Amino acid sequence: MAATFFVNGSFVPEEQAQLHITDLGLLRAYGIFDFFRAMDGQPIFQEDHLDRFERSAELMGLTIPASREQLREIIAELIRLNPHALLGLKLVLTGGYSPDGFAPAETPNFFVIPKPFEFKSPDEGLHFMSVEHQRQLAEVKSLDYLLPIYLLRKQREIGADDVLYYENGLITESSRSNVFVVKGDTLITPAEGMLRGITRKHILQFAPQIMRVEERPVTLEETLQADELFTTGSTKRIVPVTKIDQKPIGTGQPGAVTRKLYELFLKYEQETI
Amino acid sequence: MAATFFVNGSFVPEEQAQLHITDLGLLRAYGIFDFFRAMDGQPIFQEDHLDRFERSAELMGLTIPASREQLREIIAELIRLNPHALLGLKLVLTGGYSPDGFAPAETPNFFVIPKPFEFKSPDEGLHFMSVEHQRQLAEVKSLDYLLPIYLLRKQREIGADDVLYYENGLITESSRSNVFVVKGDTLITPAEGMLRGITRKHILQFAPQIMRVEERPVTLEETLQADELFTTGSTKRIVPVTKIDQKPIGTGQPGAVTRKLYELFLKYEQETI
Repeated sequence: MAATFFVNGSFVPEEQAQLHITDLGLLRAYGIFDFFRAMDGQPIFQEDHLDRFERSAELMGLTIPASREQLREIIAELIRLNPHALLGLKLVLTGGYSPDGFAPAETPNFFVIPKPFEFKSPDEGLHFMSVEHQRQLAEVKSLDYLLPIYLLRKQREIGADDVLYYENGLITESSRSNVFVVKGDTLITPAEGMLRGITRKHILQFAPQIMRVEERPVTLEETLQADELFTTGSTKRIVPVTKIDQKPIGTGQPGAVTRKLYELFLKYEQETI
Repeated sequence: MAATFFVNGSFVPEEQAQLHITDLGLLRAYGIFDFFRAMDGQPIFQEDHLDRFERSAELMGLTIPASREQLREIIAELIRLNPHALLGLKLVLTGGYSPDGFAPAETPNFFVIPKPFEFKSPDEGLHFMSVEHQRQLAEVKSLDYLLPIYLLRKQREIGADDVLYYENGLITESSRSNVFVVKGDTLITPAEGMLRGITRKHILQFAPQIMRVEERPVTLEETLQADELFTTGSTKRIVPVTKIDQKPIGTGQPGAVTRKLYELFLKYEQETI
């Protein structure tokens, strides 16, 4: 069945989901998005994602042309029109058609892309490539993925799956996910310089049941010395990271604490949504 | 008369110049552009701009779907179809419709936007706001203008016209132009960390006729202590900068050396194209 998208107030067949090429998101990378999933028709942590989407818009001086209730209705309708067991929903808001090609327009462009997807396996370890970089406007989920896409060629050369950003010796995040270090009985994650992930937020809520949890500056050095390392996001939940720059983390295999937290997350997710 | 754009191989009426919303330039800011002007139907420094456009594409791993000769023909036809005394031409190349939404597609999207414009006055001094920032992939003319557009609200508050980037105490460039410092009989401009402007390149060629020229690291401190400061670009040629962070540069008025270089540039431009 053909997909149905939402573009500037209308539900349209996928092939008609177009914008004029003068959109400020396209010409000047000025825009934000958020992404979450619906499972068996049920949006997962929808309110958290809408909170963040609204916050990103506010920080960027953009106005979402829909109330919270209207956003919920648009999403519910897209889920109804695109029936998939596992559906990703990407909400995008741009600076619109700028009169001078630089300053955001009064009216933004707003669209939602529904797309079926599959989870990454929680049993396979990812390989990260460390990169000295601080993402611009770290608290905004912006459209800027220039650097990690530019670095894809280098990642492929060394067999890395994603980048791990650090700045002044402190790690922040991966290109599309947060990171957590397991050391002894402690779970540690950076407190600043990264996007505040929704999966990250929920892990911080339930993890104290089983271990000590610290949100604080995390050095690249202690990350390399971790017992276990994992990455989190809405398309991943929790996925082990077993190598950085081709060096093994801990045993170089997915670890037991990561697995335990993954199982707790599945349970928490079912209870919470 | 309605404008005619060029999109993926076709000349189309402006209103039909659309891309699907899954374009990687739009969703992930992965794309490049170049911009130059045509005066009375004559493209100005076209080969310099096409050199740079091709170089940006190569650095980003993108393939322009047109030879140099085909690019010249597309531009000539757009100039013919959009007759204006002063026409800006913006060539844009993006990562196309990515199969996985992240890695660039085999086939990029390529379009050209023609737009009439007016020069900024060479007699009015601009006001810059200094910002600690290093533009990503400085040698690539990428679509990333996230930070300067984000900072527009702050610029308006203090009456600034543009930002001046510096990092580790050294200036690099403005958001859309290069910068030159005049101190005594010497013209100084940063050598690294900025886009290599075409106007900048030509100034470096003719300025030694009248003064000493240095391409080297330039501190923010010496920029603030300059006798004169100016900014250069294809939409500006040479425009004085008379204030940084509300502090006057030199006399706080457009200076004689800047004016002299502007006049030499006009002459050089006429002789060169």
